Amino acid sequence: MNIKTYMQTIGENAKKSASILSCAGTGQKNKALIAIAEELEVSTSELTKENNKDLEQGKKNGLDSALLDRLALTKARINTMIEGLHQISTLADPVGSITDMTMQPSGIQVGKMRVPLGVVGIIYESRPNVTIDAAALCLKSGNATILRGGSEAIHSNQAIAQCIRKGLATAGLIEDAVQVINTTDRAAVGELITMKQYVDIIIPRGGKGLIERISHEAKVPVIKHLDGICHVYIDDLADPEKAINVTINSKTQRYGTCNTLETLLVAKTIAPAILPKLQSLFNEKSVELRGCKQTREILTDINQATEADWDTEYLAPILSIKIVDNMNEAIEHINQHSSDHTESIITQDISRAQYFVRAVDSSSVMINTSTRFADGFEYGLGAEIGISTDKLHVRGPVGLEGLTSQKFVVYGNGHIRE
Amino acid sequence: MNIKTYMQTIGENAKKSASILSCAGTGQKNKALIAIAEELEVSTSELTKENNKDLEQGKKNGLDSALLDRLALTKARINTMIEGLHQISTLADPVGSITDMTMQPSGIQVGKMRVPLGVVGIIYESRPNVTIDAAALCLKSGNATILRGGSEAIHSNQAIAQCIRKGLATAGLIEDAVQVINTTDRAAVGELITMKQYVDIIIPRGGKGLIERISHEAKVPVIKHLDGICHVYIDDLADPEKAINVTINSKTQRYGTCNTLETLLVAKTIAPAILPKLQSLFNEKSVELRGCKQTREILTDINQATEADWDTEYLAPILSIKIVDNMNEAIEHINQHSSDHTESIITQDISRAQYFVRAVDSSSVMINTSTRFADGFEYGLGAEIGISTDKLHVRGPVGLEGLTSQKFVVYGNGHIRE
Repeated sequence: MNIKTYMQTIGENAKKSASILSCAGTGQKNKALIAIAEELEVSTSELTKENNKDLEQGKKNGLDSALLDRLALTKARINTMIEGLHQISTLADPVGSITDMTMQPSGIQVGKMRVPLGVVGIIYESRPNVTIDAAALCLKSGNATILRGGSEAIHSNQAIAQCIRKGLATAGLIEDAVQVINTTDRAAVGELITMKQYVDIIIPRGGKGLIERISHEAKVPVIKHLDGICHVYIDDLADPEKAINVTINSKTQRYGTCNTLETLLVAKTIAPAILPKLQSLFNEKSVELRGCKQTREILTDINQATEADWDTEYLAPILSIKIVDNMNEAIEHINQHSSDHTESIITQDISRAQYFVRAVDSSSVMINTSTRFADGFEYGLGAEIGISTDKLHVRGPVGLEGLTSQKFVVYGNGHIRE
Repeated sequence: MNIKTYMQTIGENAKKSASILSCAGTGQKNKALIAIAEELEVSTSELTKENNKDLEQGKKNGLDSALLDRLALTKARINTMIEGLHQISTLADPVGSITDMTMQPSGIQVGKMRVPLGVVGIIYESRPNVTIDAAALCLKSGNATILRGGSEAIHSNQAIAQCIRKGLATAGLIEDAVQVINTTDRAAVGELITMKQYVDIIIPRGGKGLIERISHEAKVPVIKHLDGICHVYIDDLADPEKAINVTINSKTQRYGTCNTLETLLVAKTIAPAILPKLQSLFNEKSVELRGCKQTREILTDINQATEADWDTEYLAPILSIKIVDNMNEAIEHINQHSSDHTESIITQDISRAQYFVRAVDSSSVMINTSTRFADGFEYGLGAEIGISTDKLHVRGPVGLEGLTSQKFVVYGNGHIRE
């Protein structure tokens, strides 16, 4: 079968499954999630066997150790997948909820019902656990899923796919509700992101290169999760202790995450009191500091930050620092250089905090809080399929609700328009 | 100046205006709306003069009388524009509202704040009143607007644009908050729909051809307002009187609107009792009926409906009728042939009504209600910039809220992640 025909079949199956899933009860969806968890449990040796094929092939192909580590399906990781399924089964089902029901002057009642998006296409790189996480979130939110994992994980993903199919069958749900593409041919991705008649949304998970390429070529709408160039602004009315704690935590709690601080902005009148203390703490953690000209007048031994630094997501123990005249200059810098992910102001002044929250155009805007909190679990979403840096449909951490839409429902009693 | 440079300047101005507008107070935005209304009032003769230029040119170019009628800015239409501005000034401002504020286990407070989308591009055809309607809705929702009207209305639109600029200035708002493109060169549209760095969303208003062309070529997300192939399903448990009233109203209250009924589905056991009565009422209104084979066994003198009829938006006094075995067959037909706009079930059975509302995947799903109610005003949105047939971001009638998004706001007190 050629790729086009194969993907058309996948698309048709998904569309058909979506209409069944959209009416599936919460209990039945939960039953499927638990059944999939049980299949993973009893298939551990099979999963390990198939994963070993990928690992051996990966070694032959010269994958580096970091990639091989991400590819490995250890017993601990299988258990995490199983726990994840149980956890998602306990979350509230957004589908079917009706809100904003109002009585209109004509006598009709109008409200909004949450409904699944339909068919979700997920494109991801090496980690096979994404297969379960993504499938579980889409299933719980009533969406059919088409998954396309990295070619280096093909055997692992197919083995997981078998567990999913069996679990769906056990719960009496259509097995094609979750389909994992079984070819490594890149043409399959090209089809997936352009099959508008079958696919409602694409969620790419992976590096910036992957996401930009897919956004550029897709005809289906994409929920993008691009880079996080996150800022903390230390206002001159900040509490110095909070400023220091939040800054250190935002940068050093983890270096490789998208909600990690990359550029620190400091009001000029507070800078002389704050920056030396920060420097000694950052030195302890071996974080390289790069400063603007004014910063280097205080911290004389650090490197000069170039224009490129303001637009760089380091994902590493490097921090760029800029001194600004006031909050407005900070907001201007943020709206010009941030990737619209997460920004935090440190201030004790309520009016400034209120203004900052309103004026900064990012998916999360914080007051006196570490940027590391920008996360679906910390926000109480229960789970997260990504963090949207788009403005339409959903911004910030995307949980179950982000995988749904709202339609209008209208109740009348023979009402006609005059 | 070439088109590319011109449009870049427009884009930069819009982006700059958007950041000012996003923080503008509701009072100031309302003041601008009223000031624009006053400018229209005092500029009536100027508007008429410029509109006459378009009308004369239109006649020379051989525009048909329907198009010329849509192009005409009569005194009554100017008054409607003025009323519209006053009405939008009275609507609640969605921007800045914070909902779902919750306290998380970590101690942070997380909520969602409504924010403008940023820069909205509107592309529309001949009616110059759209210039005011669209500008007013975008302004109230804190968005900067770039408007591109039909070339045949260029003088009228530029005259309206002048009134808008003056009104914005009177209210102390940036004049570039609303920009009307002053060239009829089609290349300007090509730039507008691909300037992702400046434009956040495109809303095309016009015929299906325009909307499909723009969706196909755009790099900026598009809120589409495509056709309305709307259905009424008369269940065998319907109240016959409601069934007849709602069907007649859905089809004949207006023929040319997107929420007009185009295909009637009737359960086979109720069809013999209902269809002859409907036929005589439709005959009185000269509506042509086209039926499936079973329908023609009851209404023997009507034409056969072809497969193409099920996929046609007539926008005319024509109705296709299909007899179905049961509700499931009706839902299947709808999900295959509808344009996801509006569908209504007529039934007295609450379980069927509940199931229909859940299973039909359209932007409005109704119970015992005329499809003609699918409208922003009837739904209580106060105004409407279009009816989205998309699934992402916003479905159905789009009011002020549809022109906004939500970002996360997080309040801490020096909180750091452990």
